[in-house]
Amino acid sequence: MSKALPSRSENYSEWYNELVKRADLAENSAVRGCMVIKPYGYSIWEKMQRALDDMFKETGHSNAYFPLFIPKSYLSKEAAHVEGFAKECAVVTHYRLKQDENGKGIVVDPAAKLEEELIVRPTSETVIWSTYKNWIQSYRDLPLLINQWANVVRWEMRTRLFLRTAEFLWQEGHTAHATAGEAIAETKQMLEVYATFAEEWMALPVLRGVKTPNERFAGAIDTYCIEALMQDGKALQAGTSHFLGQNFAKAFDVKFQDRDGKLEHVWGTSWGVSTRLMGALIMAHSDDSGLVLPPKLAPIQVVIVPIFKNEEQLEQLRARVSDIVKELKKRGISVKFDDSDANKPGWKFAEYELRGVPVRLALGMRDLENGTVEVARRDTKTKETVPLEGIVEHLSTLLDDIQQAIYDKAFAFREANTTPVNSYEEFKEVLDGKGGFVLAHWDGTSETEDKIKEETKATIRCVPLNAPEEPGTCVYSGAPSARRVVFARSY
Amino acid sequence: MSKALPSRSENYSEWYNELVKRADLAENSAVRGCMVIKPYGYSIWEKMQRALDDMFKETGHSNAYFPLFIPKSYLSKEAAHVEGFAKECAVVTHYRLKQDENGKGIVVDPAAKLEEELIVRPTSETVIWSTYKNWIQSYRDLPLLINQWANVVRWEMRTRLFLRTAEFLWQEGHTAHATAGEAIAETKQMLEVYATFAEEWMALPVLRGVKTPNERFAGAIDTYCIEALMQDGKALQAGTSHFLGQNFAKAFDVKFQDRDGKLEHVWGTSWGVSTRLMGALIMAHSDDSGLVLPPKLAPIQVVIVPIFKNEEQLEQLRARVSDIVKELKKRGISVKFDDSDANKPGWKFAEYELRGVPVRLALGMRDLENGTVEVARRDTKTKETVPLEGIVEHLSTLLDDIQQAIYDKAFAFREANTTPVNSYEEFKEVLDGKGGFVLAHWDGTSETEDKIKEETKATIRCVPLNAPEEPGTCVYSGAPSARRVVFARSY
Ligand SMILES: [Zn+2]
Ligand SMILES: [Zn+2]
Repeated sequence: MSKALPSRSENYSEWYNELVKRADLAENSAVRGCMVIKPYGYSIWEKMQRALDDMFKETGHSNAYFPLFIPKSYLSKEAAHVEGFAKECAVVTHYRLKQDENGKGIVVDPAAKLEEELIVRPTSETVIWSTYKNWIQSYRDLPLLINQWANVVRWEMRTRLFLRTAEFLWQEGHTAHATAGEAIAETKQMLEVYATFAEEWMALPVLRGVKTPNERFAGAIDTYCIEALMQDGKALQAGTSHFLGQNFAKAFDVKFQDRDGKLEHVWGTSWGVSTRLMGALIMAHSDDSGLVLPPKLAPIQVVIVPIFKNEEQLEQLRARVSDIVKELKKRGISVKFDDSDANKPGWKFAEYELRGVPVRLALGMRDLENGTVEVARRDTKTKETVPLEGIVEHLSTLLDDIQQAIYDKAFAFREANTTPVNSYEEFKEVLDGKGGFVLAHWDGTSETEDKIKEETKATIRCVPLNAPEEPGTCVYSGAPSARRVVFARSY
Repeated sequence: MSKALPSRSENYSEWYNELVKRADLAENSAVRGCMVIKPYGYSIWEKMQRALDDMFKETGHSNAYFPLFIPKSYLSKEAAHVEGFAKECAVVTHYRLKQDENGKGIVVDPAAKLEEELIVRPTSETVIWSTYKNWIQSYRDLPLLINQWANVVRWEMRTRLFLRTAEFLWQEGHTAHATAGEAIAETKQMLEVYATFAEEWMALPVLRGVKTPNERFAGAIDTYCIEALMQDGKALQAGTSHFLGQNFAKAFDVKFQDRDGKLEHVWGTSWGVSTRLMGALIMAHSDDSGLVLPPKLAPIQVVIVPIFKNEEQLEQLRARVSDIVKELKKRGISVKFDDSDANKPGWKFAEYELRGVPVRLALGMRDLENGTVEVARRDTKTKETVPLEGIVEHLSTLLDDIQQAIYDKAFAFREANTTPVNSYEEFKEVLDGKGGFVLAHWDGTSETEDKIKEETKATIRCVPLNAPEEPGTCVYSGAPSARRVVFARSY
């Protein structure tokens, strides 16, 4: 910790970049667009993974692992898919280096050229469906419910830590079903899993919706998504779940014999969330002092800072604290006792604020005498003095309260920044003013969607799943519309 | 399950390949040398990961994530390292595909050539040490104890499921220390972690040793290893831990200011185990009926097969079994009740044998009346009839016994197949006869090591850490030797 962060109001973008680096979450590597996820950032990602993985398993999915490389010809088998992914992929063309004969150091060995180029997976539908062809023969083999945790590469030109990187970490679920209905139910179920994770773990309220054809995954019939609102009024797509119809089954000729002995193509879904969630988590809750982490995802939930003048005092504090630490751990609360004398308490306070530790305890000699301790909340920055007696119980409740409070604050922010508009004038005013989610009627055409995007940089984030029927007229074209959709500028 | 496996004595290699495929552990993908790890195989790997990860964290390590791609120039910075890895790496040269103008489909876009080629990481020392340069300034930043779980690629020409694949999954620890002594202690500590994991989780006894210079990791000062013995008498290197000295610190100019203000290069280690452990696990314990899994790594520890003639009987069995299932789960024992009527009990017995489920319960109407159940052990293939009363307690103890028995059997096998020899004649006889570990005196030269390898295909697996001082003469050259080393043919 050195100088203060830029403030959000001053420069939101710089605030984010600096926060990610200073809180030890991630940094850019020497490889264009590829990030290093630092230990503290990675430990948050591990908590996300664990929670999601448990939810996938509870809904009947198993993990597996498929190859990093995709033969070029595979990518081409589904027409829309290749269209969507060919423009930004890393291509492996050779399999050996050698010493240059003219002393130029190590060079690609031209003799080691691959017959067919390999693509570093941007997503794995093609390689997985080519495998499913061998795994599925009969209705007894269905449903096939598989997930993989993996790295993927999309050669983005403009990258941003966590939000858009050339390489990122994610999970991708790929399922196969006997009927369209089952596949659609799976698509929606996994959307709900993502929404539950976002709301209950990340303390992040999300809209559940369907993408317009323009914004669909390349190769999907329907793309469902969860959309969150960041503090600068921009939307962030936090997860997607795709109903693939029979597109990939047809591209890779995956058929099954149904109960009547008839051969049918199977129905598919895919769904994913990525390290982009880290970006959403950081942006949604943090403030000008640093990270604000919901307790359920905080690597350290409680930090205890002793206030002491000499080793003897520290010994007395240590004796009292060690019981508290033991009891907190017994309850599954992660706690750090920072008794280093390399830094002053004030420095430590700022450091743990920067890192988003939800609760800080400060304990000095006076507290020991009085049987009290100072408890500071990271989210509200409020402090209270609390009896040491019963502190563990108190902290346990407090962490739950904080989790809820962070959610409530984000929810209130979203409510305050969701605005129905009834004219294009109003639409643009809101967008350029407070931003946020703009609820507007739209005529359902790609033309209008494109025009609005061109003119305002706003896209349709989704058609909300729970959108009420409400006849109206398109803010752009005046044509009739059955319900409002959600527009926003986005990450 | 269809026809029987090939037997080990008939064709060990085919037995292994078939077992891996039929037990749903892994299969070859359409991409040369890359495997698909199937859900059942992956669930074993997940248990390995969890156990290892816990041990890494207990010894103070944190996880992080570094880029998949390594700039070509990085690989060249450590001379021995590039020598070791340049010959078998996947090289990314382009970042875009496009539609061919002559209608040949999708092709590499020549306009999208990278200025500097990127290597898909075969191991991450270079990219990690280039990062550490920015993370380490002072002795206060040390030790730096980081691990990453990742995929890596080495373009092997002859591949074998789990044992040698172009892409594999692994963990790689990379640590930095202020002194050589600390780095060596870390190297040895992690070797001991691997040995403990192999012995306590995989039920696999291992030799702990040091590699000869010939067999060292490219860029290391010393490579420590654990070596296990497979049932065909071949050795398998199950994990390595490298003392890197200051090699990578010098190559990437990573220095720190010590307590006296002096600038020094830091000292490094790296250590890794991979999905190769899956191959070791399978080969070490399995038999002609299929997998034998140590209970601690078995995805299903207990399977319950009901024997019934009609739905009514099944209902009665189900009622009794559901209590047992509940109680087993409460104890953390994973259990499957296979009440499907698609397959007969005999088919199920064979199937769970193939998959290595450690304990099988069979329960029929007679058992219900008698208050008994048939308990079959996978490892010994013995059966006993046991009272239903107290069955959970019985199973809990039984699983521990099986874990121990599998270890004991492997240990006895290794003891029986470890042979001290005192002449080159004897050396060759043992190698060609029973195989196994051959303990022989060696003169310490690479020349002799090379000659023996050329003539017998045996390599020095390691100089055991606990090898007693025992003066003798080299079996090949007759030159003096201070202790025996371990030779074997190997995977
Ligand atoms: Zn077809
Ligand atoms: Zn230097």
